[in-house]
Parts: sequence; C-alpha cells; structure tokens
Amino acid sequence: MKATLIMTPGPTYVSEDVRRALSKEITNPDLDLAFYEFYKETCNKLKQLLNTNNDVLILSGEGILGLEAACASLIEPGDKVLAIDNGIFGNGFGDFVKMYGGQVKLFQSDYEKAVDIEKLEDFLKDHHDFKMATVVHCETPSGITNPVDLICPMLKKYGIITVVDSVSAIGGEPLKTDEWQIDMVLGGSQKVLSAPPGLTFLSISDEAWSIIMNRKTPIAGYYCNLSVWRNWYEEKWFPYTQPISDIYALREAVEILLKDEKALERHRRIAEAVRKALTIGGLKLYPKAGFSNTVTTFMVPEGIDFKTIYEEMLKDHNILIAGAFGLLKDKVIRIGHMGENCYEEKIYITLKALDEVLKKNKIETKDELHKLFIQYV
Amino acid sequence: MKATLIMTPGPTYVSEDVRRALSKEITNPDLDLAFYEFYKETCNKLKQLLNTNNDVLILSGEGILGLEAACASLIEPGDKVLAIDNGIFGNGFGDFVKMYGGQVKLFQSDYEKAVDIEKLEDFLKDHHDFKMATVVHCETPSGITNPVDLICPMLKKYGIITVVDSVSAIGGEPLKTDEWQIDMVLGGSQKVLSAPPGLTFLSISDEAWSIIMNRKTPIAGYYCNLSVWRNWYEEKWFPYTQPISDIYALREAVEILLKDEKALERHRRIAEAVRKALTIGGLKLYPKAGFSNTVTTFMVPEGIDFKTIYEEMLKDHNILIAGAFGLLKDKVIRIGHMGENCYEEKIYITLKALDEVLKKNKIETKDELHKLFIQYV
Repeated sequence: MKATLIMTPGPTYVSEDVRRALSKEITNPDLDLAFYEFYKETCNKLKQLLNTNNDVLILSGEGILGLEAACASLIEPGDKVLAIDNGIFGNGFGDFVKMYGGQVKLFQSDYEKAVDIEKLEDFLKDHHDFKMATVVHCETPSGITNPVDLICPMLKKYGIITVVDSVSAIGGEPLKTDEWQIDMVLGGSQKVLSAPPGLTFLSISDEAWSIIMNRKTPIAGYYCNLSVWRNWYEEKWFPYTQPISDIYALREAVEILLKDEKALERHRRIAEAVRKALTIGGLKLYPKAGFSNTVTTFMVPEGIDFKTIYEEMLKDHNILIAGAFGLLKDKVIRIGHMGENCYEEKIYITLKALDEVLKKNKIETKDELHKLFIQYV
Repeated sequence: MKATLIMTPGPTYVSEDVRRALSKEITNPDLDLAFYEFYKETCNKLKQLLNTNNDVLILSGEGILGLEAACASLIEPGDKVLAIDNGIFGNGFGDFVKMYGGQVKLFQSDYEKAVDIEKLEDFLKDHHDFKMATVVHCETPSGITNPVDLICPMLKKYGIITVVDSVSAIGGEPLKTDEWQIDMVLGGSQKVLSAPPGLTFLSISDEAWSIIMNRKTPIAGYYCNLSVWRNWYEEKWFPYTQPISDIYALREAVEILLKDEKALERHRRIAEAVRKALTIGGLKLYPKAGFSNTVTTFMVPEGIDFKTIYEEMLKDHNILIAGAFGLLKDKVIRIGHMGENCYEEKIYITLKALDEVLKKNKIETKDELHKLFIQYV
C-alpha cells in the first residue's frame, strides 16, 4: 500500500515521532515492574487531556471496545438507560445498551443539528427515571458536536450517570470531564491523538466504580469487564498482557498533544475555515447547526456521485477522503481535520484536489475552495 | 525502561525487522481497499503456519480475547462442554465456558504430565454427550505440551468439536489443524511469532462457522462476536477499525517464521538441551512427562526463594525470567525459549547468569548449567 494523504476522520496520519516510539524495544509488560509505572504515568497524561482526576484505563482494542466495556460493566439486565440519539452513533450506542440487557429509551433529536438542550430539559422534567445515559460527543458520520457541557450536568441533576463517547472529539474539542460531571469518557488512539489504531481509553468516576463493584448480577464476559481492573496497580497485575508497543506510541502522541497549547484553537479555526470555503464556494454542509471541529460533512454536489469524487481524489491526487454509511451512504463527503490532519497545508492540498476533481467533472463552484480556505483561515 | 533480555514465555523479544514493519506509515484500513487484500494475505500466511484451509481471522486484542471470542460465539446457555484440565490454563478455560452459560465437565488429569490419552479414551466411552471440548496445547505455567494430535481426532470421533488454545505453542510445536481435525485454533502475536503483544488470531472450521451462524440465541456481546466477521472480505467491511501497524508487524513476523524451515527442530533441540542441563546439573523439572518445547518450568531449588533468583537475575544480569501464578506461585521458575528467544546464545547467557546467582547464594549444582547446555545442544 502506498502512503496516501489520509484526510479521513480517523485513522489519522501517524507522525514519525510516534512511529519511532512504536518501534522501540519492548520488555515483558506483565513482569517488568517499571512498565506498571509507565502505564500509570501514561494514564496520568490522559487525565490531563480529559481534565479529570478520575481513574483512567487504556484497553487493548479498538474504540468500540471502550463503548462495549462501559455498557457491559455498568448495565444490569432491566436497567433503564436513556440513549441520546441525534445521529448514527447515538442510535447505535442504544444497541450496545440493549445487548447488555438495558431497557433503552431513545431521546430522538434532529439528525441535522446538535442536541436541542431545551427539548432535552423539557423531556427530562417528565422522564428521568434512568440509571444512566449514553451521549455522543462528536457524531462522526454527520460531523456534529453535541453540547456535552450542558447535557451531562443536566442529567446529573436527576441522578443519571453519563457515559460519553468522545472518541472522535477528545483533543479537538473542549472536554472538561470533572467540571461537566461525566462519569465515563471513552476515547480512541487513532483519532485526534494520531497514534495507530488499536487502543481505547476511558475515565471512570467514583460513582461509576461504585456501580461496577456493587452489581447484583455478574458482568457477562471478561475482556469487557472493567471490575477486573480495579486493583491493577496495587496488585501489579494486568488482566491480560498489555500491548506495550502501542502504549509507547500512545504515550508519545499524548505528550505531543499536551505540549501543543494551540491544538484546540487550531481545530476550531481550521474547521471554521473549511466550512466557510465550502459554503461560500456553493457547496452545502450536512449539519444545520452544531458543527464539529474535527470533521466536516458536506453533501455530494448535484451532477456527480460520491464514488467518482472518492476515486478521482485517490487515484489522481493520492488523497483519501471518506463517505459515510447507513442513511448517509453515498449522500455526503467527509474531510477529517483532526490531530495530524489538522494543518493548513493538508487542507489546502485536499481542497485544491477537490477543486480539480469537481472541475474535471464540470461541477461549478462559486470560487475555488482552496483559495477561499486560505482567505479565511 | 532499559532493554532487558526477556527470557520469559512471552512476550518475547521483537526483532528490528518486525519493529521496522510496525513503524511503517499507515493508511486508513477501513477505506483503503488495498488493506483488505493485505489482511487477507496475512491470514493466508497464518493458514500455512497452522496447516489449515479453514478461515483465519486476526482480532485486535490480547490472546485471551481469542479464547473468549471462541466461547462467546460457539456456546449457547446450557451447552455441555468438556474442559480438559491438566493445568492452570485448562482449568481457567472452563471458567470462560461457564461465563457464556456452558455446562462444564472437567476432565481432570495429572497436573505434572501431559493428558493421559488412555484415560481420556476410557472416560469418553461412557461420557461423550458434549457439544464441544476445550483443549490447551501448551500449559504455559507448568511447561507441558498436550498431545493435541491424539486428543482432537478422538473427540471428533464422538462428534465433539474442539477449540485448542495454542497461544504458547504455535510455531514452536507441530500443529496440523486440518489433519488433527481441530475446529478452532487460537494464537497470539507475542509468543513464538515474536511480534508485539496486542493481536490474537484464530482458525474456524466450516462446522464451527455453521454452529456460530445457526444459533438459537444471540451472541452476548459484539467485540467477541465472530459472526460479525462472516463476510468481511466480500463486503469490504471490518467490524471495527483494524490495528494496521500491529498487523504490519505480525505479517513480517509470520513471514520470518515461515521462511525458517528449522524453527520446529530448533525449538525441540534447544528445549531438550535446557532440560538436560538442568536435570544433569541437579535441578528438578516441574513436569514429569510431556515437556514443552517453548518453555521450561523447573522447581525453585531448596535453600533459596524465587524472589531472590528473579531479582538477582534482573538486577545483576539484566535478564528477565518468569515465575508462575496460582498453585505454582513461588514454587517454580520458567525460562521461555520460544521464537526470538530460542537461540543458543540467549540460553547460554541466561544459564550462565543463573549459575552465578545460584553460586552467589551458595546453592550447589552438580555442574555448571551453561556448560552442560553447550554440551547437549
């Protein structure tokens, strides 16, 4: 496989520094006590990123493992769970809840906008008999960021614990786990952090721990069972052999991100300029409100199909962009601008290539997208 | 963490070639169709290693994920399962079966020997009403290899499907999946293959697929659910983002192992010489029969404790050896000689260091272990 410019909403480009950390010589992470310190320090760096004092764990598996581990560990059969659903991921989160026996109530909100806080407030007045709620921070397929800062404290007022899928947002959107009273935050290595795919990490509040450790029914399964992690550090025992190379890489990636004080601002600024370039150029964004800072989703222009744009971007320009799936399949195009993808020059050449593909297919824009981008960034 | 000589039964040393593959630039494994071919070719190489035409999958997670995925996918509540138990891993495999609702019958066999085939044959004459059996190829804690070549065909005669944990054996012990009629074989990246920890792989026979796809009850969970992998290639869709860097490394590791025509012979020869050196030197092996070719387990000599040997090996000689856990905790010492650890010079310096540690602690041996090793290897 040739190295392509991957402008998708994750996996993102992995920098040479991170790949160098990945390729370091390893030790035996079960037996070398120094690795327990290294793992702990890496979790502490992640705590900084998540703005939390809660425990943080890194699990060996893809982001979806984090979602499943949260559901498997917190939910007992029959538990009432509210799934906030304004997109494909929010809806799918509800399916994970059901898989572990939760009784799901979907709070359905417009798929083209961030969750409507006032409507949620009205709903909660009459319906708040929930143990837990699932919330998606960034609806990656539609490019929408939800106001987790408002949603989670509101749920907490009713005693509802919150599990937030922030896989595609962490590092690219503000996230204040403790201030916003989030019980569990879920992240992944291959998004804004720009480490290789293969790791998920999560924070666990005292209340979430208490629920996990005081269940009436056993947790179904081992790999998704967070209770087996309760005393990993005190007992110097991991539930399974840790993926040491991937954790070396994640550590380097977190340090790079923490040092980059302007990361959030850059994500905001570049995302805004991408949106301006596209809309002033005459294209139509998918969301009407609540735009993501890590991924922009826009409609496939009339007169061309997604496949043509995708293939010509890849074949003629060596740039990989994304479509979406489910109800958005073939309807939208996605450009990821997260982590290592979130630099002006990468967006510039991506939009320039898009200009050429559109031109070649006789799709007119009001102005060249890459020049508009430069004007607004 | 300083780079230590890791002489444990996995994770093993990861060679520079494998680490170089690990650190290659990535693509987006969900969207780049070339990666589906790369993944498939890697599975095909694993098929060669396993001597099978069955499907092979690589999962993103540690070896234990493979065991759990097999149990989660094959077992329905109430299914009768035979767990062949002549060690800590065999016994623990039964716990995984229970976790997914299986009714477990343990076939208990002497923990100091390979499974007694005649006794198993006698047992099966009267008790063979099982859907499935779990078998451990290498009992890593005790250093015993079970005769999977005899066990699996015998079970198959009674229509019992077999799931074999070969995590610590694959590549270091003969394994003929199809000839021995094994329905599922489970492996891990960090053992004989000497790739970094983080991947498990498994083979699935047509009969196992048929059971998975024709269940009466849904599979509990997603990450351990093998049915979602049924059409990954045809549909060009992975159940989750694949850990591309780890798979690059695994591919390189499999290729190295496949090219090494003398690998099995070297494992056999080195293991035998280690055992001769230890026993002629006056130490006592833990197993009485069925010695593993990938790990040697021997008793902590009288007059010294495990911790002293472990710590002096590490501190004074920069060599990491292993103890064991459960009922073997503090009783035995383990030296791994699998994959990249299975070279004369590495065993030589390990035994030489052990000689010095024993001497320093006034534990006498009949002859120097490292010299005995050289004599017999």
